[in-house]
Amino acid sequence: MNKPRLNIGIVGYGFMGRTHSNAFRRVPNFFDVPYEPVLKAICGRNQARAEAFQQTWGYESVETDWRKLVGRRDIDVIDIASPNDTHAEVAIAAAQAGKAVLCEKPLGRNAAESKAIVAAAEKAGVPNMVWYNYRRVPAVRLAKELIGEGRLGRVFHYRAKFLQDWTISKDLPQGGEALWRLDAAVAGSGVTGDLLAHCIDTAIWLNGFIDSVAAVTETFIKERKHNLTGKIQEVGIDDASTFLARFANGSLGNFEATRYALGHKALYTLEINGENASIIWDLEDLHRLQYFDYRDEGKLRGWRSIHITDGDHPYMKHWWVPGLQIGYEHTFVHQAADFLCGLAEGNVPGPSFLDGLATDYVTDAVLTAAKSSAWEKVGNPQ
Amino acid sequence: MNKPRLNIGIVGYGFMGRTHSNAFRRVPNFFDVPYEPVLKAICGRNQARAEAFQQTWGYESVETDWRKLVGRRDIDVIDIASPNDTHAEVAIAAAQAGKAVLCEKPLGRNAAESKAIVAAAEKAGVPNMVWYNYRRVPAVRLAKELIGEGRLGRVFHYRAKFLQDWTISKDLPQGGEALWRLDAAVAGSGVTGDLLAHCIDTAIWLNGFIDSVAAVTETFIKERKHNLTGKIQEVGIDDASTFLARFANGSLGNFEATRYALGHKALYTLEINGENASIIWDLEDLHRLQYFDYRDEGKLRGWRSIHITDGDHPYMKHWWVPGLQIGYEHTFVHQAADFLCGLAEGNVPGPSFLDGLATDYVTDAVLTAAKSSAWEKVGNPQ
Amino acid sequence: MNKPRLNIGIVGYGFMGRTHSNAFRRVPNFFDVPYEPVLKAICGRNQARAEAFQQTWGYESVETDWRKLVGRRDIDVIDIASPNDTHAEVAIAAAQAGKAVLCEKPLGRNAAESKAIVAAAEKAGVPNMVWYNYRRVPAVRLAKELIGEGRLGRVFHYRAKFLQDWTISKDLPQGGEALWRLDAAVAGSGVTGDLLAHCIDTAIWLNGFIDSVAAVTETFIKERKHNLTGKIQEVGIDDASTFLARFANGSLGNFEATRYALGHKALYTLEINGENASIIWDLEDLHRLQYFDYRDEGKLRGWRSIHITDGDHPYMKHWWVPGLQIGYEHTFVHQAADFLCGLAEGNVPGPSFLDGLATDYVTDAVLTAAKSSAWEKVGNPQ
Amino acid sequence: MNKPRLNIGIVGYGFMGRTHSNAFRRVPNFFDVPYEPVLKAICGRNQARAEAFQQTWGYESVETDWRKLVGRRDIDVIDIASPNDTHAEVAIAAAQAGKAVLCEKPLGRNAAESKAIVAAAEKAGVPNMVWYNYRRVPAVRLAKELIGEGRLGRVFHYRAKFLQDWTISKDLPQGGEALWRLDAAVAGSGVTGDLLAHCIDTAIWLNGFIDSVAAVTETFIKERKHNLTGKIQEVGIDDASTFLARFANGSLGNFEATRYALGHKALYTLEINGENASIIWDLEDLHRLQYFDYRDEGKLRGWRSIHITDGDHPYMKHWWVPGLQIGYEHTFVHQAADFLCGLAEGNVPGPSFLDGLATDYVTDAVLTAAKSSAWEKVGNPQ
Repeated sequence: MNKPRLNIGIVGYGFMGRTHSNAFRRVPNFFDVPYEPVLKAICGRNQARAEAFQQTWGYESVETDWRKLVGRRDIDVIDIASPNDTHAEVAIAAAQAGKAVLCEKPLGRNAAESKAIVAAAEKAGVPNMVWYNYRRVPAVRLAKELIGEGRLGRVFHYRAKFLQDWTISKDLPQGGEALWRLDAAVAGSGVTGDLLAHCIDTAIWLNGFIDSVAAVTETFIKERKHNLTGKIQEVGIDDASTFLARFANGSLGNFEATRYALGHKALYTLEINGENASIIWDLEDLHRLQYFDYRDEGKLRGWRSIHITDGDHPYMKHWWVPGLQIGYEHTFVHQAADFLCGLAEGNVPGPSFLDGLATDYVTDAVLTAAKSSAWEKVGNPQ
Repeated sequence: MNKPRLNIGIVGYGFMGRTHSNAFRRVPNFFDVPYEPVLKAICGRNQARAEAFQQTWGYESVETDWRKLVGRRDIDVIDIASPNDTHAEVAIAAAQAGKAVLCEKPLGRNAAESKAIVAAAEKAGVPNMVWYNYRRVPAVRLAKELIGEGRLGRVFHYRAKFLQDWTISKDLPQGGEALWRLDAAVAGSGVTGDLLAHCIDTAIWLNGFIDSVAAVTETFIKERKHNLTGKIQEVGIDDASTFLARFANGSLGNFEATRYALGHKALYTLEINGENASIIWDLEDLHRLQYFDYRDEGKLRGWRSIHITDGDHPYMKHWWVPGLQIGYEHTFVHQAADFLCGLAEGNVPGPSFLDGLATDYVTDAVLTAAKSSAWEKVGNPQ
Repeated sequence: MNKPRLNIGIVGYGFMGRTHSNAFRRVPNFFDVPYEPVLKAICGRNQARAEAFQQTWGYESVETDWRKLVGRRDIDVIDIASPNDTHAEVAIAAAQAGKAVLCEKPLGRNAAESKAIVAAAEKAGVPNMVWYNYRRVPAVRLAKELIGEGRLGRVFHYRAKFLQDWTISKDLPQGGEALWRLDAAVAGSGVTGDLLAHCIDTAIWLNGFIDSVAAVTETFIKERKHNLTGKIQEVGIDDASTFLARFANGSLGNFEATRYALGHKALYTLEINGENASIIWDLEDLHRLQYFDYRDEGKLRGWRSIHITDGDHPYMKHWWVPGLQIGYEHTFVHQAADFLCGLAEGNVPGPSFLDGLATDYVTDAVLTAAKSSAWEKVGNPQ
Repeated sequence: MNKPRLNIGIVGYGFMGRTHSNAFRRVPNFFDVPYEPVLKAICGRNQARAEAFQQTWGYESVETDWRKLVGRRDIDVIDIASPNDTHAEVAIAAAQAGKAVLCEKPLGRNAAESKAIVAAAEKAGVPNMVWYNYRRVPAVRLAKELIGEGRLGRVFHYRAKFLQDWTISKDLPQGGEALWRLDAAVAGSGVTGDLLAHCIDTAIWLNGFIDSVAAVTETFIKERKHNLTGKIQEVGIDDASTFLARFANGSLGNFEATRYALGHKALYTLEINGENASIIWDLEDLHRLQYFDYRDEGKLRGWRSIHITDGDHPYMKHWWVPGLQIGYEHTFVHQAADFLCGLAEGNVPGPSFLDGLATDYVTDAVLTAAKSSAWEKVGNPQ
């Protein structure tokens, strides 16, 4: 009756610290998981903030040095939810300490960092996972099912974009607590690593590896005040990043990400055109899937707007009743559930660190192509 | 090679005079009709306006007295596009003169007028038709096909509304040229005869007769300046009219029309829920049909948004290529085409004058029920 | 630092038992509420099921007799999430025992039951609330704000419907565990109390009291096997219920609910047309509000699709970042948060038991009007 | 009163022959144009087909040799609606004969041809126009107005795609009457000249010149039967073509066209993101414009779906009443109206032949870049 406890230590109390904490808090209420996940420790540099976070989420303890956390023998899982520049160091140390390691995306700031992380995890043989959470939107998982069942046939086109509009103001500073995503040193890159990485992870998962890319990036606002130095400094990140791709399966890809598309807050859309069927999905209405099947009767062919709330839709039998939608945060609960089940079976599902590296090879190639003004081959992790 | 000419005399040079003129002008360019329709005469009270209309549309002659038009031996078809208070008089005289008679909807201002029109047409044995044009929207006709094929099964619900917002301003006067629809003496009623009549005609066509109704009407603006008298006068029309219905087939109906629904200019929508399939259509996107079929595979069930522009959609092979939409005016062209073909075959399709009377029985019952605050039986024309 | 604990005992471990449990579990993670809500006891007739529920949700104790629960001195709040036929008895006893009382909607099976509940709560002076959760959808609350700010001006129309399709199969039995909503003795009525009640509560909240109604109800499947007796029995509930209404403010209402609208799982939509602005909302995309404002510049007037995920939208600053949607369950978390805050201030916000009674007066009038085939006045609770 | 007659000779009786004929037939019924356009002669190689076309559209005469048509003194305007490989020859001869020349898009099969056409027209000083008809969709013209009024501010992104799905079948042959668009010798290119050309013309019109491009093209079906030879032959056209662009104004462009996007028949969409406002338009619902303005009040910001049917929307006062949509063919009527008005004023509006050349410089660069795998500079026509 009593399940084994699994002690989790989370590094980072920001946006992602919240989504991960919520995932582990809620998973036992909705999924019959083989462990009782325990929020054992929250780790953040600022003691007061860490304690406030502890209070809100019910952590048993607080750490302000991730090294101490990694060194604790009562911690089973290190879950990294801190800014990108910490991922490699913490993940490698956690792996070396024999912990299961979960890491927020992107894995490293670039493929070199990610390679080192993968190497450490493989050497230590520890379970690992990257939080590319959109794989676990029920509609996206249904898309995966449909592709797996061969419904699309030969794929001609894969199209994805991730459009936001939150950095258009010139007065927005860069760097520091909430704005580290604008600081190239911390983030590694701009929308390429932040937004395109999501699109690429899903794309590889659904449509296979990418062979080569041509790209353009742009930094629309060239200088911003830096919150840490207080000075006006050059902006090092890419504000927008678009690339053309050739997939290994012969299909063409078109990817775009920007934070300068007014009217879109988090419009991650993807579309796949096969010879028999097409699929469209959109994060701003994540509970729907658009599906077009040429094999439908001619005069009645149309895009079906599937409301993904039925019991036979992925994950949905665990939630409410048909017609009642779930939201963004549930994708993390799903990933936590799959992690816990996989861990018990000795077979943690993807996205693994190796999957994370595959995405980083693409983002590296995109940034290179944007500089070289030429098509670039993508490194293959396998 | 040369087709017989069919001489048409149209009464009325307003909005409907234009749609009818356009219908007969265009039909030979797109449909292989058995007659060459000739715009022989336009008839309107104002000589100058009639001549301007003649010029614009290429009429051969002008009349200012409909009696003279009806008396002309070179006219084969009298097409009535003038305000409602002229329909009965003109239609009866035209029938008595042995002309084919087309009449803009509603047929009469009430069932009593319509009965007289039907009687005259039947006595004279002349071809006749009412311009309930929405039956010939390709999407609506596809709905009819689907119902005819038995796809819906037992029908539970029929829902229709026609929402407009053009009379909300208190400063809008009533009566006269462009605003006769607000003058009860001319129009007969307000939205009941103007908008609900459209909904009812389609409903009877698609779902059979209506047995009984309960209704509410409202006149939100009680007084308006009258354009003909120049005085503030009581408003006699209904601004809004809603009714519940029991259909002969056991299904329930919910109908609503108003000119006080801000944001909707011509939102005529209908929805039918059967035990196997449901249909939704909307005039403001008239080139689409929404279709839901329970027999689709479970996890892929969804509303299909069918873009009604393919060659196997009703009427569409006559127009352009798939993907390219037609608009409002084309419904009149379709009706003209069907009239001409039916005339040659001696079998003019509906909506006939009898169909027009059937609708007027319902609108009469609605207006009675709104006054009696009780359910009212609907008269049956057959 | 440590907040006072508030001990909650929930009656019912079904669908609503889950939504309420989840609400109290999650509220402290997202809202700075003045109490620490404690899931003290779950009460259900079946010991094994109650214990399983306890385990899943982390309740401290289990009761199988609600009388025992109500009698416990360590319980501060009785929250009723059991079938409708238990509401009056439990709520009255809980009030008499001096507990704060929360009750799932509808309050009673009819106005008579609800009057008794209101009387008991008023006599005891206990805080009380009904779980009409849709008031706390952020989009619906924004609609309330806009109306409160006078943006709509005079209201002409209020339109609401709640369409489902889950009871179309003739083979679905009635009664027992999961299907008590089809058993008139337990539920009180069919869609009138189950679905229309939601529409009415929101309508009164947004648009004021309803004066009179005309209605039609229908039971499409007349007999079903009863799960408790094992026999084919007459179905006592209404499968569909539609009514016309006159509001006290002069606007017209059109309400419809059914479980026979194929293609709609939980399509609760509402639309309000004012002289200056109109609003549309739809539960199947609950994170959006449609808004049309006539004061927008003419050529740019259009329905705005507002993605309700910004920090300045009601409740949303507590959740994630702009663009990331929440779902159905969050409405209960919001109500729990408002309840806890109101309790501390001695001023629990609505919907109160009196509000619940107001809705029951309307549903009673609807059912009466459906039988009388006449307009019926609605009782006024105040 | 009587307007001067303008005699038009149209070359080509295919799809575009119909749209042009319809445009000139209808324009006097809806626009007060300064000429009476006369369908003087239809020219096509097949005598029987030309005569049938003459009959349908009411042409006064038939020619089977375009040289004879161009040589006729009673022809004022030569309108070229025949396949792309005829454009240069006919247009140059017509210009040399001093006719006003209208040409279906693309102007030439490549920039070299178009340059020769422009040179001939400039030397002869004849009025000229290319039928890039989508400039005259009312919604697109409204977009142009909004940009002209400075509503968008600095533009960051321009995104356009034209997706079709009609050549996916391997069994579709290439070449001949209806399928010359698949024959590279006749068409010049595949979707680049057929579909991207439309996107590029609108883009330059709305957002200015394009500096440089990177591109990828693909021919998914490598061999098809050729209708003229009866043999299986290599397919020379591009089935899909995508390119990244840098505009002269500093914004980034993303363009894509394909005939392999199942579910889209003619999905030409464009989106422009400015610092203050964004615009989206979609050919499959051409009567709507989506508009987002950041200057709207925060909590009410949303994409406005503007139903482009009001009298203050471009061109719409000439058609019906608000709420009633027009369709695809009307764009040609609008262009005919603008041509006739401009001709009388001695100032024919664009798209001129020079505009047509500007687009061809971009399509040339796209095809070059797809081969070179490098960014290519775009030639500037001015």
